[in-house]
Amino acid sequence: MMLDSLDTPAAIIDVRRMNKNIALMQARMNALGVKFRPHVKTSKCLDVVRAQLSAGAQGITVSTLKEAEIFFAAGITDILYAVSIVSSKLSRAMALRKQGCDLKIIVDNAGAAAGIVAFCRDVNVGEPPEVWIEVDTDGHRSGITPEDDALLEIGRILQAGGVKIGGVMTHAGSSYELNTQEALAALAGQERAGCVRAAQRLRAAGIACENVSVGSTPTALAASRLDGVTEVRAGVYAFFDLVMHNVGVCAIDDLALSVLTTVIGHQQDKGWIIVDAGWMAMSRDRGTSKQSRDFGYGLPCTLDGTPLDGYLMMGANQEHGILAPAGHAPHEGDLEARFPVGTRLRILPNHACATGAQFPEYHALEPTGELTVWRRFHGW
Amino acid sequence: MMLDSLDTPAAIIDVRRMNKNIALMQARMNALGVKFRPHVKTSKCLDVVRAQLSAGAQGITVSTLKEAEIFFAAGITDILYAVSIVSSKLSRAMALRKQGCDLKIIVDNAGAAAGIVAFCRDVNVGEPPEVWIEVDTDGHRSGITPEDDALLEIGRILQAGGVKIGGVMTHAGSSYELNTQEALAALAGQERAGCVRAAQRLRAAGIACENVSVGSTPTALAASRLDGVTEVRAGVYAFFDLVMHNVGVCAIDDLALSVLTTVIGHQQDKGWIIVDAGWMAMSRDRGTSKQSRDFGYGLPCTLDGTPLDGYLMMGANQEHGILAPAGHAPHEGDLEARFPVGTRLRILPNHACATGAQFPEYHALEPTGELTVWRRFHGW
Repeated sequence: MMLDSLDTPAAIIDVRRMNKNIALMQARMNALGVKFRPHVKTSKCLDVVRAQLSAGAQGITVSTLKEAEIFFAAGITDILYAVSIVSSKLSRAMALRKQGCDLKIIVDNAGAAAGIVAFCRDVNVGEPPEVWIEVDTDGHRSGITPEDDALLEIGRILQAGGVKIGGVMTHAGSSYELNTQEALAALAGQERAGCVRAAQRLRAAGIACENVSVGSTPTALAASRLDGVTEVRAGVYAFFDLVMHNVGVCAIDDLALSVLTTVIGHQQDKGWIIVDAGWMAMSRDRGTSKQSRDFGYGLPCTLDGTPLDGYLMMGANQEHGILAPAGHAPHEGDLEARFPVGTRLRILPNHACATGAQFPEYHALEPTGELTVWRRFHGW
Repeated sequence: MMLDSLDTPAAIIDVRRMNKNIALMQARMNALGVKFRPHVKTSKCLDVVRAQLSAGAQGITVSTLKEAEIFFAAGITDILYAVSIVSSKLSRAMALRKQGCDLKIIVDNAGAAAGIVAFCRDVNVGEPPEVWIEVDTDGHRSGITPEDDALLEIGRILQAGGVKIGGVMTHAGSSYELNTQEALAALAGQERAGCVRAAQRLRAAGIACENVSVGSTPTALAASRLDGVTEVRAGVYAFFDLVMHNVGVCAIDDLALSVLTTVIGHQQDKGWIIVDAGWMAMSRDRGTSKQSRDFGYGLPCTLDGTPLDGYLMMGANQEHGILAPAGHAPHEGDLEARFPVGTRLRILPNHACATGAQFPEYHALEPTGELTVWRRFHGW
């Protein structure tokens, strides 16, 4: 099976680019002297994760218990579940630990910490849990700020309940809103300092805190020193995408994920090329809409990956995409002659995590042109 | 299994509301004297489609060949594949006809029509294809305008090639951009008139054109007469959603699809409630962002479906949703006391087709409170 005969739409991984991205991140982490724990929510694909582990990653980060269950079943034991736990999810999480999975759960509030303690007291959990505390270092979402008294309160609740505190973790997700090396480096410094400070406060209060975990793709690629940090997490770096390109951490030809599509029609007078990749294939992610360069629903390329100058995917219905001249660039020439019905194109996505999630499988494209099916999973 | 014990996030179908929506649309179509062919791309779920057929629907519309294959395997034979065909998809489409599926394919250009003729000539297809011609009645996407010479050209190519022309079809998708009954009724009239005119032109040229198929949920609900039309198609009406509410064709308490979620944290000073439904659960669809009322990523409700006054899902990461006061409404009172960690909520989505697609299954909620798993499928 090759690109010119595969059913469309299809999610294509350029294996050479992916391996290069993985190697580059791992080399940075090795140079900075920290462990690297990739976030597998981006790919949800064992083939991709094996490539990350082969390159030197130690353990994984997951966003759902289903990811933890599937990757543990594939033999990966060191797993950080990086979404704050609630009591209703503890049975499923603890079932993994009973089976030998070294699953770490996180909390950012006293209620959830008390819930864990109550669960361990009231239910015969067997294997005790390991909890990391989520720290807020940039105000973008969850976590406890490093100087907040709640940090020590949570630590004391867990400690008093006999629950192991394994570390602190933070995610400077606001890095996605930046676009200069200077700003990214500053945020990476803030992320590091805040998380290290939280660990210091816990330790000073007599609460063990072995691990200090930070990361996002942009800050991981911008950090110049990581003193006090034990590990870094990042996900989208394996594929990169147009949002990351606008942030400034990758070139267009680093993007490893694209959607293969077929031209199914035209509206010649409007300059529109209609393709069979709609939002069901690309996702509805419009992450570049507030960035320096808006790529619409994606950047169309020829089959060999060369961007079609002047065209963007400007519109999306469920199974129809509309490729149109960006801005008000006039259309020149005969569109139907240039892109006849049946022409195959590849569209680079705004957000690899969201686009990948639309597909039950990737097709991994080797430099030889051969394609291999890599399954990905879906749901919770 | 009940709403208070189901793993979250989960996609909940309120069966009573869904059945009411289905019955209302079918009654309208019966009164207008047309067949109704629901678009199953919204649900991709056999249980939902069976409810539509039981109510009186005749045949289905699909957006992918996978939908055609799965629903044909379940015994449904009258299927319209409503995305313009290309040659590379003909083998798969014709395999269905060989097995006895009455699959209709569509084209809107001479190249695709010639491709069908060539396929039938060069490949031993056995069962001949049936082709409908796509008509553009509102300029929003695909199709041939009713007065375009290409309409007759396509008809003649197919006729000369011995391919049966089964009808014409159109979809006035620009109806999603309207929000008054007057404008919707006018567009429904335009959709009807344009499609009927295309059929008349074909017939006048000696080209058979038995079926005249129109539809979108808003125009189907706004049409006052459908003379010359043989059938109507619509999809999202079965669930409705916030976009349809803004268009003006349903009330909030008609919405049959919601996402069950659990509160996992707070940022008290910002008035934020953090939930475990992010964009992976809601989709990235922001279809209300350009409408009269922007619902963010969705409208949070209590477990019984009552909207939380003043709150919207304002932010979404992959597995985190941020519920926040809409606009600049000040937060009053203790958020953690009002919505403790573990509280369950339901979020109404912008776009039911996109939200449903994020889930491997629905949980159908009966008036008794009981939940039944209804599988849905994914991919192409």
